[in-house]
Amino acid sequence: MKILITAGGTSEKIDQVRSITNHSTGRLGKTIAETFVHSSSARIDYVTTANAVKPETHEKITLHLIESTLELFTVLKELLKNNTYDAIIHSMAVSDFTPAFSLSEEQLATSITKEPLSPDTLSEWFMTQEKVPQQDEKISSNTEHLVIVLKKTPKIISCLREWQPTAKIIGFKLLVDVSKEQLLAVAQESILKNRTDYILANDLTEITAQSHHGYLLSANGEVKEAQTKQEIAELIVQTISQTNISDGSS
Amino acid sequence: MKILITAGGTSEKIDQVRSITNHSTGRLGKTIAETFVHSSSARIDYVTTANAVKPETHEKITLHLIESTLELFTVLKELLKNNTYDAIIHSMAVSDFTPAFSLSEEQLATSITKEPLSPDTLSEWFMTQEKVPQQDEKISSNTEHLVIVLKKTPKIISCLREWQPTAKIIGFKLLVDVSKEQLLAVAQESILKNRTDYILANDLTEITAQSHHGYLLSANGEVKEAQTKQEIAELIVQTISQTNISDGSS
Repeated sequence: MKILITAGGTSEKIDQVRSITNHSTGRLGKTIAETFVHSSSARIDYVTTANAVKPETHEKITLHLIESTLELFTVLKELLKNNTYDAIIHSMAVSDFTPAFSLSEEQLATSITKEPLSPDTLSEWFMTQEKVPQQDEKISSNTEHLVIVLKKTPKIISCLREWQPTAKIIGFKLLVDVSKEQLLAVAQESILKNRTDYILANDLTEITAQSHHGYLLSANGEVKEAQTKQEIAELIVQTISQTNISDGSS
Repeated sequence: MKILITAGGTSEKIDQVRSITNHSTGRLGKTIAETFVHSSSARIDYVTTANAVKPETHEKITLHLIESTLELFTVLKELLKNNTYDAIIHSMAVSDFTPAFSLSEEQLATSITKEPLSPDTLSEWFMTQEKVPQQDEKISSNTEHLVIVLKKTPKIISCLREWQPTAKIIGFKLLVDVSKEQLLAVAQESILKNRTDYILANDLTEITAQSHHGYLLSANGEVKEAQTKQEIAELIVQTISQTNISDGSS
């Protein structure tokens, strides 16, 4: 078996000394990788960040380090175009946005002097500002307000199926303080939209140092439940291993 | 001797899953703390973050963990009001800004429908938006542009002298790709403005895994130079220890 795991959280540079970071320790990905290594003969490509917790060093695990969403996109495209995986477990917290431009309060005032900003001029203003060369260094702190405008990053999860038509794909959905119904509905929608086989759905308010409540939804509507990172890892490893055996024997 | 060291970089929450982080490994602070421990009888209060590299565990070092600039402010005020330090070495990379409010492109459009945003209405708009209760959860990714407005944080370095009239204070100034003259001029200005005794001035482009070029400026205009984290640490430890001895014997 050949598995691809992503884990940890991306960071997007604002300037040379500041970033926007998505929180994720990488601990769940580590647990999943170690469970695979201990219970199967799987070989793992493990994509993570410098700051994330890593799985124990093991000859079956190859680490690939990335920082930003764009780097993740490039590395995944490369790996997925050149390898055939049995499963992709995409647990990384990927930034939905990346800084497009930043303005001090004073720069913002200057940019709207000739033409005030209104709903009609907003799109044009975004486009114009995005074309202004950004100073790549350190934003001056000499202003009361700093305005950072972020633009959407490409949705990596929606590219995985295109790059790997046959792999079992497990996406992850983290929401904050929602009902079980809401969480499962959003997860089901994500399965359809991104053509994944499973989604691990979890709620930040149900993750502590000791426990990690999660639901593993499959595309056919089946829902399994787990209470800890280890249970989630075992559920995923079992699901992937069984699917793989039944696919092989059919 | 009683020393306070700050090290690492603060993070400011945007929502429950994203932060703006100031990059700083904390390695220089670690080196300074360990050099003090090995070459003097100093006791150290060491203020840092969960993510930063920590000094070796040692009975003479007490760790204090913080995350945001506001937490740093609170912890330092508490420590500095209740202790008398011989020296304060403030190497932490502190965020100059913290998120005040965030708007999707659509929310921004709505907020400027009745009154377009112009230089005259900008201050009023910031004030109004800052009063709108922010959803504390996870910002929806369902928009092309996300606008994050940051406001200035209190300048902690400028409070240190007020809280500790007699301590030797060493501030840090990190600039990016400037001339030696510019770097020293900005550092000298910071000494005057914040009433510190020294500034360690360094340039991000002169920091690598192996080397760390820095200048230690004193309030009387003296400049000493170092090429590695270890040399910077020794320079600081020597300077503080000597000052302490001469103060003690005078």
